[in-house]
Amino acid sequence: MPGSNPTLNDILFNGDYEFIDLTYPFDKNTIYWPNAESFAFTRKNEAFGSDGAWYAANNFAAGEHGGTHIDAPYHFQVNGIRVGALPLDKLIVPLIIADISSKVNDDPTFVLQKYHLDNMLNDNFGKPCVIVFKFGWSKFFNDRKKYLGIQPNGTLNFPGLSAEVAEWITSSYKNIVGIGVDTASVDPGSSIDYPVHKIASAAGLYNLENVKLDESVPDYGCTALILPMKIALGSGAPLRIVAICPKQIPTHF
Amino acid sequence: MPGSNPTLNDILFNGDYEFIDLTYPFDKNTIYWPNAESFAFTRKNEAFGSDGAWYAANNFAAGEHGGTHIDAPYHFQVNGIRVGALPLDKLIVPLIIADISSKVNDDPTFVLQKYHLDNMLNDNFGKPCVIVFKFGWSKFFNDRKKYLGIQPNGTLNFPGLSAEVAEWITSSYKNIVGIGVDTASVDPGSSIDYPVHKIASAAGLYNLENVKLDESVPDYGCTALILPMKIALGSGAPLRIVAICPKQIPTHF
Repeated sequence: MPGSNPTLNDILFNGDYEFIDLTYPFDKNTIYWPNAESFAFTRKNEAFGSDGAWYAANNFAAGEHGGTHIDAPYHFQVNGIRVGALPLDKLIVPLIIADISSKVNDDPTFVLQKYHLDNMLNDNFGKPCVIVFKFGWSKFFNDRKKYLGIQPNGTLNFPGLSAEVAEWITSSYKNIVGIGVDTASVDPGSSIDYPVHKIASAAGLYNLENVKLDESVPDYGCTALILPMKIALGSGAPLRIVAICPKQIPTHF
Repeated sequence: MPGSNPTLNDILFNGDYEFIDLTYPFDKNTIYWPNAESFAFTRKNEAFGSDGAWYAANNFAAGEHGGTHIDAPYHFQVNGIRVGALPLDKLIVPLIIADISSKVNDDPTFVLQKYHLDNMLNDNFGKPCVIVFKFGWSKFFNDRKKYLGIQPNGTLNFPGLSAEVAEWITSSYKNIVGIGVDTASVDPGSSIDYPVHKIASAAGLYNLENVKLDESVPDYGCTALILPMKIALGSGAPLRIVAICPKQIPTHF
């Protein structure tokens, strides 16, 4: 390596960056879609042995599409890529946060239209990146009924993208490799035909759902590490998503 | 950000780095310890709906300690940190590969002693890092009996670390935050009391097991992304481990 240029490790560990975990833990409270198999954690061995030494090893089980997870294109596209085949150069990419939470204003019927975005999708989008829409919904994650907007008749109600926005992103912004949301689905909770899932998967994009956005993350300048459990044939998988961000200097007083 | 200094994204995506996946896929061939619950993938929905649209969603189940996975200190230490509490600044760290495969020379009874390492653990170790020992065992991963060294009486036989090396690392190299191996265990397969697990967990180190080292990775200069499934109470978890490395220029002719 050239001696005069800083290396990745030089930059990454020089104190100017911080790691922000955008992942909910998997435990008994992890939110799954109604009728999906929730996360189950089964204690198998947790005891001191005859030699006095502690030993713990457990089992777990879950549906692919709960908690913080990734949808591979195969979820809604029979010829789409499965989780195990998602290329790393689409999983380690610049992160854009499109914060539309003030426009949502806690309204579970909000559906994101193109005009809401104004100039948010700007020219920073020249290279591969992932865009995560912040609806401001993470604050409800500890209240499953509120987060999913479960209605008396069992239907759901939480904000999401319109088909218009999905079409626009996939047609006009070819550099966007995936779409994330801080809700349980890229489609609005009330959707019955999932147009955003269909449009995104047909274009080869992945989705990131239940992204944990309950602390401040800069809109631009972060790097997303999007590393799902490598379920070879998965239509989706539990995801660890971490943002590496320039340390934030308070600018609001 | 200062205009004159390159940002992380500038460095990371300037074409000088490559991403190397050190993770085996989870599928029906994934190697688990005998008597552990293997990875099970259950097709739940995989069909075209009445609207003609494809939809796939599946379930999965497994033990914590199979395939490419992490051992949290809690695995062998009752007061140790569990998977969900492992701090990110110990999971995104410089990666050191200690390639001792030529010394192992495919001998399943090889046990790594301090003298084998000579000057391998050198002064590059000034800051937090993870060390992954390459025994040259990944080439056997597709032959479970060979990889685990399963004997007629059911015992196992594959190379591992000695207690001496574990003691040395945890006492002399406080900056090493975790130990990885390209075998099924940091202890040799023939071990019955797991001293390396006990020493590492008592010192707060995690282990990375079944790391996929079947392609060339530079010994120094890479960054490790060690992102396990965030099983809150896990003693271990499936792991996605990726090395970000300076692109290698062929030097062997």
